Amino acid sequence: MTYFRKNICAMAGYTPGEQPTGTDVVKLNTNENPYRCSPAVGEAVLATLERGLEKYPHPMAEPFRIRAAELLGVEPDWILAGNGSDDILTIATRAMVGEGDRLRLPYPSYILYRTLAEIQGAEWEEVHFDRDWSLPASFGTGDERLRLVFLPNPNSPSGTMIRPEQILALAERLPCPLLVDEAYADFAETNCMELVRQCDRVMVSRSLSKSYALAGLRFGYVVAQPPVIEQLAKVKDSYNCDALSIAAATAAIGDQAWLADNRRKILATRQRLTDGMTRLGFEVVPSQANFTWNTHPAQPVKPLFEELRRRNILIRYMDYPGWGDGLRVSVGTDEQIDRLLDELRKMV
Amino acid sequence: MTYFRKNICAMAGYTPGEQPTGTDVVKLNTNENPYRCSPAVGEAVLATLERGLEKYPHPMAEPFRIRAAELLGVEPDWILAGNGSDDILTIATRAMVGEGDRLRLPYPSYILYRTLAEIQGAEWEEVHFDRDWSLPASFGTGDERLRLVFLPNPNSPSGTMIRPEQILALAERLPCPLLVDEAYADFAETNCMELVRQCDRVMVSRSLSKSYALAGLRFGYVVAQPPVIEQLAKVKDSYNCDALSIAAATAAIGDQAWLADNRRKILATRQRLTDGMTRLGFEVVPSQANFTWNTHPAQPVKPLFEELRRRNILIRYMDYPGWGDGLRVSVGTDEQIDRLLDELRKMV
Repeated sequence: MTYFRKNICAMAGYTPGEQPTGTDVVKLNTNENPYRCSPAVGEAVLATLERGLEKYPHPMAEPFRIRAAELLGVEPDWILAGNGSDDILTIATRAMVGEGDRLRLPYPSYILYRTLAEIQGAEWEEVHFDRDWSLPASFGTGDERLRLVFLPNPNSPSGTMIRPEQILALAERLPCPLLVDEAYADFAETNCMELVRQCDRVMVSRSLSKSYALAGLRFGYVVAQPPVIEQLAKVKDSYNCDALSIAAATAAIGDQAWLADNRRKILATRQRLTDGMTRLGFEVVPSQANFTWNTHPAQPVKPLFEELRRRNILIRYMDYPGWGDGLRVSVGTDEQIDRLLDELRKMV
Repeated sequence: MTYFRKNICAMAGYTPGEQPTGTDVVKLNTNENPYRCSPAVGEAVLATLERGLEKYPHPMAEPFRIRAAELLGVEPDWILAGNGSDDILTIATRAMVGEGDRLRLPYPSYILYRTLAEIQGAEWEEVHFDRDWSLPASFGTGDERLRLVFLPNPNSPSGTMIRPEQILALAERLPCPLLVDEAYADFAETNCMELVRQCDRVMVSRSLSKSYALAGLRFGYVVAQPPVIEQLAKVKDSYNCDALSIAAATAAIGDQAWLADNRRKILATRQRLTDGMTRLGFEVVPSQANFTWNTHPAQPVKPLFEELRRRNILIRYMDYPGWGDGLRVSVGTDEQIDRLLDELRKMV
């Protein structure tokens, strides 16, 4: 259609992971949490309903910012809340990357970053991970056309991490900001939050979708130095977070005991999944996230994915041209993982 | 900051209307509905909480699309849901208006449209309303750099409307799409929904903030022909509406009896407000929205706004260079409007 920008017509659009409606499906394909969110979330939603929804919410999600700032040991003006961390990634891209500019991402990683560049009419550039999922030195170089670098850490589909000190070194060499996408950081041993203080080119985004079991709520945030937050805030929609989600998110991060308990369960099941897949002959990358990346040295994995699908077990088959394919399995409950392993045992 | 695009650094950002936290404030400044939303909304939110929030919501808000399509007499693929109709306006601008392109809006109207152009690095062009709030013929002309035209109808701050047949005539002469922003259309005598069928350049956006008393929820949508919706969908965030708001919005539009009752009350109070302000010597434009635009032939209005503010009554003072200033008053309850009129009576 000629009414649209050429770059929009040319692009395919991002296809999110499948969301089946059947209830008997074992859903291990989009890295959702298999458990319920903290009960504090429901209470906060009810209290907000009681107060009514007829007024606009706080434009900057102030109650959330205040609570998050306490937990992170920063001031509230270091935080910008978003309608999911996808909103944060969108805001950063719109604020920093214009037509003809360049955005960098590692490969294989989160394909949405490419879509964000395409919407801007910008170029994207993929720097391949080394075979051990470390990053080559070239990830930290660039000219003035490079305007933004995305680094998911832990990465998807690998579940691997780059150490914070390495990321700081990269950021200090880069000519532009580096957004560390920490959607999965609550499942990891470390994170990059401290780097934000040390380098004004580092932004760290977080999501409540995975670790807080709130994918349905759409809530994320970014931490950066206040002058950066101030510019990003100009680009967001005036009221980008709604009253129910602000209340729910504030309650969720307020229940750190729930998070710790949930994390403990997920990490135990992640080990069970890793051990089980290894016993079945898969090569499993040690994961710092709530999923594992599984390849097989001897047999094609796509037929396994398809057969599991027929048996109502949904995992993710991912094929990265120039890199190879594999199966990404979200960490479900022990029961879900055992069912997956039982079915796979009949196939491999 | 040099990390940001020049257009972002240069722009001021949009400042939304004031949201005071005190409970004794008569809040008539941001066109919120003074009544509660339909009770069906709370029930839908509770049922969604029961089912859990750990899974991603439907990427296209399908339950809402299906229900809205039934009500509007179109197919679901004519509808795109957004995180507030601001999200819809953002999506349309990003999809259609690139750097150096031009976006048109009438003046005086919704200043956010200018912000959306500025974020894109595009130009905006204001076409002045005639003194009777009709549009000059030049609103329907343009060259190939003009990529999108926004027309709020009813308009803010005037509350006036351009008739659908005139809008169709404008759209047919324009070289680009026309988005009719119908945030206030539920309070009007007519609307442009039928034009979408007649002309593929017409898009109509709606909001649940005002007429459904759900400003806190952030939910809006656009109706356009399916090939237009298909392109717009590429630009939205993957999951731009959350599970609670999809359920709430679907329930809200399902309760048309509540809407009719609410509308009847607002329209009656709008008449009371119009009559009262007229008796106090204001010139009040006949309104098709849930607010009125009030000027005074004999005295400056800014001091009235300031004095009302001191007395805990919040209305909107708006000053449009080259046009003049005035007071925009949202239609509250009868009691709120009577209190406003009582206070004003002491001042004019």
